Amino acid sequence: MTALEQRIKEDGRILPGNILKVDSFLNHQIDVTLMDEMASAFQKYFINKTITKVLTIEASGIAMACSVARLLNVPLVFAKKSNSTNLSEDIWCASAHSYTRGCNNTIMVAKRYLQAEDQVLIIDDFLAHGEAAQALVSLVKQAAATVVGVGIAIEKGFQDGGRKLREEGIDVYSLAIIEKMNEEGIVFKHR
Amino acid sequence: MTALEQRIKEDGRILPGNILKVDSFLNHQIDVTLMDEMASAFQKYFINKTITKVLTIEASGIAMACSVARLLNVPLVFAKKSNSTNLSEDIWCASAHSYTRGCNNTIMVAKRYLQAEDQVLIIDDFLAHGEAAQALVSLVKQAAATVVGVGIAIEKGFQDGGRKLREEGIDVYSLAIIEKMNEEGIVFKHR
Repeated sequence: MTALEQRIKEDGRILPGNILKVDSFLNHQIDVTLMDEMASAFQKYFINKTITKVLTIEASGIAMACSVARLLNVPLVFAKKSNSTNLSEDIWCASAHSYTRGCNNTIMVAKRYLQAEDQVLIIDDFLAHGEAAQALVSLVKQAAATVVGVGIAIEKGFQDGGRKLREEGIDVYSLAIIEKMNEEGIVFKHR
Repeated sequence: MTALEQRIKEDGRILPGNILKVDSFLNHQIDVTLMDEMASAFQKYFINKTITKVLTIEASGIAMACSVARLLNVPLVFAKKSNSTNLSEDIWCASAHSYTRGCNNTIMVAKRYLQAEDQVLIIDDFLAHGEAAQALVSLVKQAAATVVGVGIAIEKGFQDGGRKLREEGIDVYSLAIIEKMNEEGIVFKHR
């Protein structure tokens, strides 16, 4: 998606450890207009699929997932990362390692919001090692629901999360795939 | 706001400890259409104010704050709860006790996204003791920016967070104010 690639080139900052900071528009400060444009791209790609629910994970996936849910006119569910006393005990759980934070997260969804008849589109801001996406897929499978696809804003194509998901037969659509990045800049992969 | 009160009565569940669960439409599964209706109510109330930024706190405020930012056509910033290695060191910090989770949270915003000229509308899903809202107000004040107002979905009017903010001269607008709640039901306060 050209608008996203352009924005990454203009406003993204590359930090040591293959970290791409896009917190000026994607995951700290949020450009809602860009979120809506990205949501339109997902809608277009998954246009022939039946989708009953959008699933993401707190916190940085929520904004984009909201825009997608609005376009598709379905509810959004976001998986929670820690055991709030407000969450029902009746939950699906999965574990995901966060390379960014250097810790393991348990993520969870109340069973009542993910059911066998659901056709789920998973949305997240980043795909790198794929830990978060795999954990979301696990929640959907535990519920005996169907993963329609995975929609990602920025995939780090030089890490293996996307490859593994696609090898499992999951339809992964990433709006921008980074082939390589270093101090000199970013190279995007195009289909 | 009648639609919200109606929804709380229909789908809200009251748990011991004055906990109102509204996770079927507000803070776990999200009804994006309702978020948009709530955002319209905020826009109407703050129509005569200049607003340059919407500020909320992860995670459950993000969905509603997104809808507000879209209507106002300004960026959304969400404060983060823990020190991610992805966050700049150049941050404003404040502390907030979470009665729900029984712990203290440090919340933070990168200084670059909250500046002295900003006119900030703070948005959050719940107002009870007011810890989160006070911490957000503190971030804005540290930046020498202006708090235009605080927009809340559900205020627990029997707790003192709203009173304290209003006594500080802050314009707090809550879409539903709960006067009392118990096993028999919920009574809303109307202006």
